[in-house]
Amino acid sequence: MNEFELIEQCFAPLAGPEGLRLKDDTALYTPRDNCDLLITTDAFVEGVHFPSGMYGADVAERLLRTNLSDIAAKGGTPRGYLLSVTMHSEHMEKWLPAFAKGLETTQAEFGCTLWGGDTTATETQAVFSITLIGDVPKGQMVKRKGAALGDDVWVSGVLGDAMLGCHLAINQQISPAPNGQDLFSFENAYWRPEPSVRFQDILRKFATAAADISDGLLADAAHITAGEIGCATLNFDALPFSMGAENWAEAQDDPISARVDLASFGDDYGVVFTAHPSHRQVIFDVARDRKLKLTLVGSILPGSGSACVDVEGQIMPWPKTGYRHI
Amino acid sequence: MNEFELIEQCFAPLAGPEGLRLKDDTALYTPRDNCDLLITTDAFVEGVHFPSGMYGADVAERLLRTNLSDIAAKGGTPRGYLLSVTMHSEHMEKWLPAFAKGLETTQAEFGCTLWGGDTTATETQAVFSITLIGDVPKGQMVKRKGAALGDDVWVSGVLGDAMLGCHLAINQQISPAPNGQDLFSFENAYWRPEPSVRFQDILRKFATAAADISDGLLADAAHITAGEIGCATLNFDALPFSMGAENWAEAQDDPISARVDLASFGDDYGVVFTAHPSHRQVIFDVARDRKLKLTLVGSILPGSGSACVDVEGQIMPWPKTGYRHI
Repeated sequence: MNEFELIEQCFAPLAGPEGLRLKDDTALYTPRDNCDLLITTDAFVEGVHFPSGMYGADVAERLLRTNLSDIAAKGGTPRGYLLSVTMHSEHMEKWLPAFAKGLETTQAEFGCTLWGGDTTATETQAVFSITLIGDVPKGQMVKRKGAALGDDVWVSGVLGDAMLGCHLAINQQISPAPNGQDLFSFENAYWRPEPSVRFQDILRKFATAAADISDGLLADAAHITAGEIGCATLNFDALPFSMGAENWAEAQDDPISARVDLASFGDDYGVVFTAHPSHRQVIFDVARDRKLKLTLVGSILPGSGSACVDVEGQIMPWPKTGYRHI
Repeated sequence: MNEFELIEQCFAPLAGPEGLRLKDDTALYTPRDNCDLLITTDAFVEGVHFPSGMYGADVAERLLRTNLSDIAAKGGTPRGYLLSVTMHSEHMEKWLPAFAKGLETTQAEFGCTLWGGDTTATETQAVFSITLIGDVPKGQMVKRKGAALGDDVWVSGVLGDAMLGCHLAINQQISPAPNGQDLFSFENAYWRPEPSVRFQDILRKFATAAADISDGLLADAAHITAGEIGCATLNFDALPFSMGAENWAEAQDDPISARVDLASFGDDYGVVFTAHPSHRQVIFDVARDRKLKLTLVGSILPGSGSACVDVEGQIMPWPKTGYRHI
């Protein structure tokens, strides 16, 4: 199969009407009335963002989901995406059908379609880049900046399951070995992070600022305060971990430091957001009604940046950043 | 300088308001009323789309211009773009400032701004990908399909100057050596192809189908007919070449075959479009008034695909395709 046949077989079935069957030079999209567009781009590089030799469907799901996470964290709804593929010509025929399958599953789940792309055969490492377009009711994008002193800081999902999933992907094991259920949820957290599409309305209504957790909780919390408004001060004991991750941490030589690792690794793709304390109860109520894991982890206090404090209010030592590539 | 400092120094100055100073996770764009969006993506891979060791500004100008060409050929106006950069960490600091300079020059000339991006340090070849967003009055996109039997086939610009410029970029020479003026225009044609932004209104008004010439004239003309409507039949003697390219062809052992090379290489980024013969005069008039190089090269005749005929109407042998990477 040549490149054109591969595109026809793998990618054309994923195209929405906006993609004009991938036969034209541009996509054609008629924006909805009274909406702003949200546009994001993220690239995955083999050996940097995912280990070589990974299954194509996993890589595709993770790539599309990380982009979806950016749109969802801003209160938006995903609509369509363009895909740029650069990979070794010899691997294309074997690898791309599974990659396309991963895109298909994910776009069906989140209601977006493929609008266009570009494929290049090369001799070295693979690079996949997605540009995702979503929309939001006009003027309602939840920006990174907007938090105020005294705001609550919330986190969705759990922290660190993705870290353990990443370790499993690279080393094929972690110690202690997780049971089947934990193994599945760690791998799932890494390969299929959950974009926050089930409470965009809540973000739009109550969040004063939001970002998805890609770089690590404290790094992303600091993005929200932008070092200006105050210090996103998080209570270590309030941080949400899964039971499996708690068990893993407890079995380490230094369980506290293990929990810090879980919370600082990044790649969780939950949302960290701020809201006025007067909305605390309604957010708890929505979380309970929709069975969402939303945790109140701290508040914006005088100061700058972000910090994590222990039960005595002492600032805990924390890894400098933030996002580490594999 | 680390990656964040490089982004701040090189790319943040290129950001439009939609880019939110490259500090948020998504761009925010409010579409104009009564417009459709056109969206395209094109990647440049080092060693495939441009030779290693090229000057950063040249690569940036060419990459952005090839994307601009796609939007212009559809009758659209460019608005903004997202950029994905994957390159060797050691080259970033030296190379990216010039690359950013090339983007700056080009976006200023064509009235678009940077809306977002993604940068990854890697250990191997560079990959740059741009997703460009433009718009067009609602319902007026000029699609690839729409040509009718009997339509005229037009080409903008000249053919093959870019081929000679590409040879110069790779081999540092062509034979016979061009004079200074020709040298400049060959290099310019390759590194700074001219998106057809000066007659989008004409395309929207009269073109029944259009595509930019990236894969080679006959390949792109065949895209327009899609092998169904008829055969885009081009008259070899009508094909537009620059004086410099004519001189080069005349000095070759087989001038005819040299002209076929010029016309079939691609990378010209003019537009091939079709229009009803009743609009022939008005198109000629507009071309004269605006000093545009628009050439009537053939018409859609019964048959399929595309072909080039000599003065006696005989179909000329032609290279099978189309797009060849360097």
